[in-house]
Amino acid sequence: MQETTLSDLDVAEEMADAARAAILPFFRQSNIETSNKLVDGFDPVTVADRNAEKVMREVLAKHRPDDSIFGEEFGQTQGNSGRTWVLDPIDGTRGFISGTPTWGVLIALSNQNGPFLGVIDQPYIGERFLGSADVAQATGPTGTMPLKTRKTSSLDQAILFTTFPEVGTPEDRAGFEAVAQQVQLTRYGMDCYAYALLAAGQVDLVIEAGLNAYDVQAPIAVIEAAGGIVTDWQGGPAHEGGRVLAAANAELHAAALKLLRNY
Amino acid sequence: MQETTLSDLDVAEEMADAARAAILPFFRQSNIETSNKLVDGFDPVTVADRNAEKVMREVLAKHRPDDSIFGEEFGQTQGNSGRTWVLDPIDGTRGFISGTPTWGVLIALSNQNGPFLGVIDQPYIGERFLGSADVAQATGPTGTMPLKTRKTSSLDQAILFTTFPEVGTPEDRAGFEAVAQQVQLTRYGMDCYAYALLAAGQVDLVIEAGLNAYDVQAPIAVIEAAGGIVTDWQGGPAHEGGRVLAAANAELHAAALKLLRNY
Repeated sequence: MQETTLSDLDVAEEMADAARAAILPFFRQSNIETSNKLVDGFDPVTVADRNAEKVMREVLAKHRPDDSIFGEEFGQTQGNSGRTWVLDPIDGTRGFISGTPTWGVLIALSNQNGPFLGVIDQPYIGERFLGSADVAQATGPTGTMPLKTRKTSSLDQAILFTTFPEVGTPEDRAGFEAVAQQVQLTRYGMDCYAYALLAAGQVDLVIEAGLNAYDVQAPIAVIEAAGGIVTDWQGGPAHEGGRVLAAANAELHAAALKLLRNY
Repeated sequence: MQETTLSDLDVAEEMADAARAAILPFFRQSNIETSNKLVDGFDPVTVADRNAEKVMREVLAKHRPDDSIFGEEFGQTQGNSGRTWVLDPIDGTRGFISGTPTWGVLIALSNQNGPFLGVIDQPYIGERFLGSADVAQATGPTGTMPLKTRKTSSLDQAILFTTFPEVGTPEDRAGFEAVAQQVQLTRYGMDCYAYALLAAGQVDLVIEAGLNAYDVQAPIAVIEAAGGIVTDWQGGPAHEGGRVLAAANAELHAAALKLLRNY
């Protein structure tokens, strides 16, 4: 029986709270010897990943039993509402195992048209980025602020992010480099946090390749709510993953797309 | 007149507190239009940088008037104690203007042998890494923990950080790549936060080039207090800047140095 008192956003926040509590005890514990001998020989990040998806699924079982779920750890659970919660409990596991506060909990709610609600949560900083038809805001250590993408209109003034310099295949990399050569500043290593910074009006472009649906759906919803645009490298939908171009606005998106289309 | 009630560490923390308060109002304000029209046409990061060094110098004028100061923004101030406070109010300005929480306030206290007390402070996260003869600890959102470097003894198990893939000159880059090819994982983009993660036992190596004394003195003191080793690429002192190799322990340091020496 579906409760009507909680909004989708309330449910998503309850899930994010639960994931935070499940993950934080394992973050930065890799230098404690016993942490490598946890249940079933799993490493800490795997345990945290699975625990977090489990508790998020419990929230959904309670409040949204009719919705489908697609999670990185436990795959598909079929519902009958036409809506799917898309979950990546720890996006950026390499950041996680390195102790950087750039990984995040990703929660999206989507229908046949793609994601329409998203959460990017960084548990260690205590920072949460929300986007939906009704809300575009971040809450963190210095309070709550509205999310609004930048107006930067030309590549030569843009700040570009990606996670790895190698980006993906050699051809992926060539596409990325074509844009990187035109921008003011290129930075690396932020995992999903780069998308949050784009939504927050701090950076202008994020270009990645080889993504999964659960890596990109929450960023799409958050960025679109903040006024940005996310597509694949041909200008089509990006919510199934693959090659992703996220831009602060239409003009910048067009300029980057013109270069990426060739790859 | 020098007060005797405050320890050097107390003074350093008072400086870090003052710098936090001076900088935070300017962080992530770049999407606010008026912030580009501040005093004298300075951009926000320059204003924050200068304000922070100014308030740190005020703390020193009050509590340590006999010590010398070397700051990134206002240069040398000569004292007569044989001790020098080395200050970088915002290390990682490119990270700062991109909104990433990876820049930091760096404070070191040194004598003729190099730095013996260091602070790496990340104001947005509210995280502070301290190292001296008496203390090696971090305080952040999840509490206080001791700093202790990892025991990773071979390169193929090591996590390596640097800020930019290009590192420095082509030769600098070649040296970096020689090590990067041997390690388990290479990550980018952390600014001074990478040194803090090394001290915290999260990563194993940081290799950079083209550094200034004020970029590296606080990291040296924090890492050495936590059990790590920092030298230049020939195994000599690194506290004047240039090429820097920071390692979690002696064995790993020797393995990386063997490769870097050739460049």
